[in-house]
Amino acid sequence: MLPEVVLAEGKTAQQAVAAGCAILERAGCLLVTRASEEIAQALEAAIPDLRRHPPSTALSVDRRPPRTPRSGVVIASGGTSDLAVVEEAAATCALMGHEVERIVDVGVAGIHRVLAETEALRKANVIVVVAGMDGALPSVVAGLTAAPVIAVPTSNGYGAAFEGLAPLLTMLNACATGVSVVNIDNGFGAGYIAALINEQAWSGPPDPTAG
Amino acid sequence: MLPEVVLAEGKTAQQAVAAGCAILERAGCLLVTRASEEIAQALEAAIPDLRRHPPSTALSVDRRPPRTPRSGVVIASGGTSDLAVVEEAAATCALMGHEVERIVDVGVAGIHRVLAETEALRKANVIVVVAGMDGALPSVVAGLTAAPVIAVPTSNGYGAAFEGLAPLLTMLNACATGVSVVNIDNGFGAGYIAALINEQAWSGPPDPTAG
Amino acid sequence: MLPEVVLAEGKTAQQAVAAGCAILERAGCLLVTRASEEIAQALEAAIPDLRRHPPSTALSVDRRPPRTPRSGVVIASGGTSDLAVVEEAAATCALMGHEVERIVDVGVAGIHRVLAETEALRKANVIVVVAGMDGALPSVVAGLTAAPVIAVPTSNGYGAAFEGLAPLLTMLNACATGVSVVNIDNGFGAGYIAALINEQAWSGPPDPTAG
Amino acid sequence: MLPEVVLAEGKTAQQAVAAGCAILERAGCLLVTRASEEIAQALEAAIPDLRRHPPSTALSVDRRPPRTPRSGVVIASGGTSDLAVVEEAAATCALMGHEVERIVDVGVAGIHRVLAETEALRKANVIVVVAGMDGALPSVVAGLTAAPVIAVPTSNGYGAAFEGLAPLLTMLNACATGVSVVNIDNGFGAGYIAALINEQAWSGPPDPTAG
Amino acid sequence: MLPEVVLAEGKTAQQAVAAGCAILERAGCLLVTRASEEIAQALEAAIPDLRRHPPSTALSVDRRPPRTPRSGVVIASGGTSDLAVVEEAAATCALMGHEVERIVDVGVAGIHRVLAETEALRKANVIVVVAGMDGALPSVVAGLTAAPVIAVPTSNGYGAAFEGLAPLLTMLNACATGVSVVNIDNGFGAGYIAALINEQAWSGPPDPTAG
Amino acid sequence: MLPEVVLAEGKTAQQAVAAGCAILERAGCLLVTRASEEIAQALEAAIPDLRRHPPSTALSVDRRPPRTPRSGVVIASGGTSDLAVVEEAAATCALMGHEVERIVDVGVAGIHRVLAETEALRKANVIVVVAGMDGALPSVVAGLTAAPVIAVPTSNGYGAAFEGLAPLLTMLNACATGVSVVNIDNGFGAGYIAALINEQAWSGPPDPTAG
Amino acid sequence: MLPEVVLAEGKTAQQAVAAGCAILERAGCLLVTRASEEIAQALEAAIPDLRRHPPSTALSVDRRPPRTPRSGVVIASGGTSDLAVVEEAAATCALMGHEVERIVDVGVAGIHRVLAETEALRKANVIVVVAGMDGALPSVVAGLTAAPVIAVPTSNGYGAAFEGLAPLLTMLNACATGVSVVNIDNGFGAGYIAALINEQAWSGPPDPTAG
Amino acid sequence: MLPEVVLAEGKTAQQAVAAGCAILERAGCLLVTRASEEIAQALEAAIPDLRRHPPSTALSVDRRPPRTPRSGVVIASGGTSDLAVVEEAAATCALMGHEVERIVDVGVAGIHRVLAETEALRKANVIVVVAGMDGALPSVVAGLTAAPVIAVPTSNGYGAAFEGLAPLLTMLNACATGVSVVNIDNGFGAGYIAALINEQAWSGPPDPTAG
Repeated sequence: MLPEVVLAEGKTAQQAVAAGCAILERAGCLLVTRASEEIAQALEAAIPDLRRHPPSTALSVDRRPPRTPRSGVVIASGGTSDLAVVEEAAATCALMGHEVERIVDVGVAGIHRVLAETEALRKANVIVVVAGMDGALPSVVAGLTAAPVIAVPTSNGYGAAFEGLAPLLTMLNACATGVSVVNIDNGFGAGYIAALINEQAWSGPPDPTAG
Repeated sequence: MLPEVVLAEGKTAQQAVAAGCAILERAGCLLVTRASEEIAQALEAAIPDLRRHPPSTALSVDRRPPRTPRSGVVIASGGTSDLAVVEEAAATCALMGHEVERIVDVGVAGIHRVLAETEALRKANVIVVVAGMDGALPSVVAGLTAAPVIAVPTSNGYGAAFEGLAPLLTMLNACATGVSVVNIDNGFGAGYIAALINEQAWSGPPDPTAG
Repeated sequence: MLPEVVLAEGKTAQQAVAAGCAILERAGCLLVTRASEEIAQALEAAIPDLRRHPPSTALSVDRRPPRTPRSGVVIASGGTSDLAVVEEAAATCALMGHEVERIVDVGVAGIHRVLAETEALRKANVIVVVAGMDGALPSVVAGLTAAPVIAVPTSNGYGAAFEGLAPLLTMLNACATGVSVVNIDNGFGAGYIAALINEQAWSGPPDPTAG
Repeated sequence: MLPEVVLAEGKTAQQAVAAGCAILERAGCLLVTRASEEIAQALEAAIPDLRRHPPSTALSVDRRPPRTPRSGVVIASGGTSDLAVVEEAAATCALMGHEVERIVDVGVAGIHRVLAETEALRKANVIVVVAGMDGALPSVVAGLTAAPVIAVPTSNGYGAAFEGLAPLLTMLNACATGVSVVNIDNGFGAGYIAALINEQAWSGPPDPTAG
Repeated sequence: MLPEVVLAEGKTAQQAVAAGCAILERAGCLLVTRASEEIAQALEAAIPDLRRHPPSTALSVDRRPPRTPRSGVVIASGGTSDLAVVEEAAATCALMGHEVERIVDVGVAGIHRVLAETEALRKANVIVVVAGMDGALPSVVAGLTAAPVIAVPTSNGYGAAFEGLAPLLTMLNACATGVSVVNIDNGFGAGYIAALINEQAWSGPPDPTAG
Repeated sequence: MLPEVVLAEGKTAQQAVAAGCAILERAGCLLVTRASEEIAQALEAAIPDLRRHPPSTALSVDRRPPRTPRSGVVIASGGTSDLAVVEEAAATCALMGHEVERIVDVGVAGIHRVLAETEALRKANVIVVVAGMDGALPSVVAGLTAAPVIAVPTSNGYGAAFEGLAPLLTMLNACATGVSVVNIDNGFGAGYIAALINEQAWSGPPDPTAG
Repeated sequence: MLPEVVLAEGKTAQQAVAAGCAILERAGCLLVTRASEEIAQALEAAIPDLRRHPPSTALSVDRRPPRTPRSGVVIASGGTSDLAVVEEAAATCALMGHEVERIVDVGVAGIHRVLAETEALRKANVIVVVAGMDGALPSVVAGLTAAPVIAVPTSNGYGAAFEGLAPLLTMLNACATGVSVVNIDNGFGAGYIAALINEQAWSGPPDPTAG
Repeated sequence: MLPEVVLAEGKTAQQAVAAGCAILERAGCLLVTRASEEIAQALEAAIPDLRRHPPSTALSVDRRPPRTPRSGVVIASGGTSDLAVVEEAAATCALMGHEVERIVDVGVAGIHRVLAETEALRKANVIVVVAGMDGALPSVVAGLTAAPVIAVPTSNGYGAAFEGLAPLLTMLNACATGVSVVNIDNGFGAGYIAALINEQAWSGPPDPTAG
């Protein structure tokens, strides 16, 4: 569905460009995540139509024939600091052919702002919830809808947030059903899974005669 | 305000009875926490008017002249498993002269049940919130009211709840303002602080001529 | 879809029976998880048609009109010790109307046994992978298929498995895309999400005129 | 009471200025915490009457009509390194209308300096205690007074202080009653709660006819 | 100075008796620590003059010619629950020829009880301080005296005490100088070191002509 | 077999050069690990025939008479980011007289690439497997061969990889037999052990008359 | 070389017997590890020639034609409490055809007892070192010999030993070269690797014409 | 004995200079620890006779009348990287009037170098042992002598050394008796305690008529 993705962190600019160009050549599209500014510029020099997705550090390019994006994915988050992860997830969904509705600036401390989005949440086939600090938003969202929720803890916060450990544990212990969790700050992973699930809602029931 | 409390855990029945009787003699009242069944029975044998507070493991007796309990403390919790901590907190408040309104069976997974209690929460001078697993309830409650919230993580749950570590971290990272935290399962500590705060609301402004 | 579930751990037998009967009365079906033998017997005494799902500690009963179960969920695991979690997940799916294909006794140490199941894995709409110790199976399975994988770490193993922490971390860092994770030993949670996802594959594309 | 606070960490200067100006416009006052020097200068450029609170990284401005500050809050700390947290707490209290008495340079290693402040501590309605390293000061202070103590662990220290984990655990296990805890270095949170509690002491008993 | 000590934990009764008798035979004295009731009885059956040191689980016997015990060791602790560790340390000192002055029931929550013992603490050559929960006592004691303080964290407490981890970290970060730390519950180790240090105070200055 | 190795980290350039030259003088060869660019340049200035092993930070020189390298060591890894550790291990083997076959870019997410190397893996006397993130590769490799596997976790990855803790735990819990583990990023240690083991395969059976 | 091993922990007696008998039937030999007394008796009832290896919880039977055991494996340990792990490793080696020389009761606290075994250690092709508490023995042993050392941390000890975490970390950070580590208490794993390595020493150099 | 020490870390240069000058004025001597280069230069500008103790970051000055230093303290360490901690401890002892014999470059991996120093170790009244990585040296040293050993873990090493946690745990679990532990990298604390203990050896037995 999506070709191999380039995780830029831990690579030199040269390695990232080499890997990225090879994949783009082969697949007609490319997603790079966790790129430093230096790597981003090296990639842009090599691939002029590469697109950034600020404030995330993801970059993507798609040279394949256009296709109507499929609706059904919602990404919700609580604060400005989580937007980098939101956009990494959204870029991933977009490259996989899915349109994302963003519901940002909703947090459990202002529960009425979450509730005001209930209808939008209930229409989703799958919801990605990005949250740092107390990581409580996925429980609330999952309690409001019947769609599967992919929770992404972020490393925002300080002190006893322990670089994302606190929201990670919160989400693994979510009181509401339907919540599964990906790695801290892993917007790509959450977007990928959301796209997989949404794809199924669009693909219709399995053909019993297939095999 | 409250005499020394007997933390029964780590004591023999004999030590607990000796300590309890000495305090009761001196102070006219007694609170024992974390008593095993064996210790509870030994205490009851020695102090016939001792009262249990199930499902908590606290016991108390008050032989002082009765005083009208002061309203203003609310204790909220999410599930049946947290009731032991709720009752330990309530017994503490009662012995300190404060009446507790319990709002149990409210959790973030069913956010409308929490919201239905908004009015009761808003009338409180101080709110104790007891929660295990994802520990998200204090953030929601603090977002609904202006009263200080004392959060108590519980050791309920399993796996990545890590005996209460998960809700403890959640609560320390609460998104909403006004939340402070006590030790895991420490209903006594939370009830004690709630009573201190409520006492102040009843005591009126400090006398500028005193001191 | 599924009524509230009774998490028996941390409840008395009396509390569990009361909660279970109330739900069954209201919903016509019931799922109880993490029941001790004592609680299981108390529930069976009160609800004679309750069914156990050994070796898990889940119990369920369904008095609703029968419905053809929907195929598409696969549950894979590596060893005998993980079967309790497998069956808790399977019981959850069954109660939600989904049929489970079990692929057990496949582990990364004998990679050819996993590969022999490639076809079965590729036909799934969603795959639950249960693994303890090194927790490596979800990465391998996700690498073989395009379906979303719900990974469940188990507390089996000893020493540096740290009660399931080791496979939990492994799964959160899965090299393959498409893996999300639930709490340690949380077969119920994984089965629930799998059923949600599979339901979507059967429901067909969203109706653009709805909403 | 206090409008939304801008947690500058994790925001760009542009985001912080935008958020800050919007709040100030709406509420007539503003508190910013954990601002880098770059963000502080950007904010000062946009809001000339913004005031710093060194050595903390908090900034505030208050354009509301002046009101007599209410006494009753004491903030105690042990060493020079904790003053940044002290001043963040004090700035919070000030913006909420409460006057702070600072008792700094008192530590458990020189217990007589703490004792010399007993009278000042006993006059407080609420005490914030800031401490790093061994985090023992809140226990001692709480033992000397009947006021609620809000304990703030700091990330000062090195080695086994583990960025504030050591004093955090110490404070959660405080031997003395009446201690609750906020996140590591969270001077804002502690000041906020202290102001809430002190407000109640000034507001007098609840009106039984209200509600 | 002291022959090899038998750490009974992890040994069978048979192994403990064999090891104990061999040491007693060779050395004329014996110290056994962490003995279960079963092992204690097996040892008593084999060594009738063996002496228990309740509430600790240590046992000792000394058949060597008596020697006047040397004063100078103080052992201080906060609560009843720490007495087992106190007595293990005291039994170790006694077998090594040192007399112990016990100062128990002093804690930082009641700082005046500690201060009332200042004179006794200041006369000591070395002080063992045993404390659980917040582990703050060694800092206070070290601040009052110039003697080296050996701090012993105990596993008493619950929740975020994490089996003694909290006081262990507190003690390693002691604000006062002169504090070193031994393993959780290691009364034997602390008593041993205290005896070594006290021995030096009695031995007088090193002979410059020796060596 | 190999003279003392210079661990450059934690040393000044001056200390590293002094230590390196002394060893080279004495032993005729030298291995330096974890050298910063500054230290590497200082060493190159002092030892012109020193050789780098990019992308690792190891440097080596061998002035001893050449010897035919012994085959039998395979080093396998999953991704570009692990190559620094691979080359540190390979440089160690080379200096100890062993030739390394590298099998890189094989990971559990693309299990067929691993399987395609089965023959090469089975010919090895010993295999070093380098892996970050989920650390699952050693289990798969050990399941395919009968040779001992030395597993090296790397600090690549982010979030819940916790600087290499996740793959470290995975490897310690490897389902397949024959896996032992060295410190995170310790390519040197793994290469050293591999060379020791391969040496034995070449040395032939022990001489029963020796001793 | 060795058929699949039955890890009894986490299995019922019935499951263990079924698995054990199937393997014995197929392979002519069987190794069971971590068997409870109940499982051990069930296995003995089904397999009368099964042999225990006290004080370990391993059981084995070998019905294959006898073969001369190969010398070259040494297992060293420090104390009585580690013997269970020693014997599990030894039973594993024996079933794989290797004779074990045991060097027990050597610890770093009595370094001369270790040194007295230098000759025996130097004759080994591979050394398994079992140690709990401070886990320092492998470093010392590896410093004395050129053979690879397989280190096994044990869960003996208490307090800050944290169930084997302390010696595990010690061993991973061994100062001496040539040390690799297996899971806590994993005598089986260490014995298995030792047998693999010793086998190579006996097999002679690889045949360059093979493969 | 020693005036208050300035822990420079967490202070501004201005704060450090102010604190340092005040202490020097009052006490005639000064010890500063953990000073950055910037703070060191500011202090040197203000106090020209201040002395550095490289490679540590401690600085000291002593304007009191000279006194013959007292022998009896030994500081042992394993490698070049630990020298900063060694010199911080030595500077502390010197300022307290005690002469230090350094035994560096002894490690458990080369046990004979440790043994060659046995005589020097046995003459000591107290021994400070500084060690990183596996932290095994204190156990070996304590096994060779009867003097109390103060163990200092260092943050050298990488990976599973976890910034000094590994040697800290090793030392707390030391197999040999007589070992107590201070915070990671706390050379000052260890030197201080060593001086206290050595002082006692020189002071002679307590005067029974005093007190």
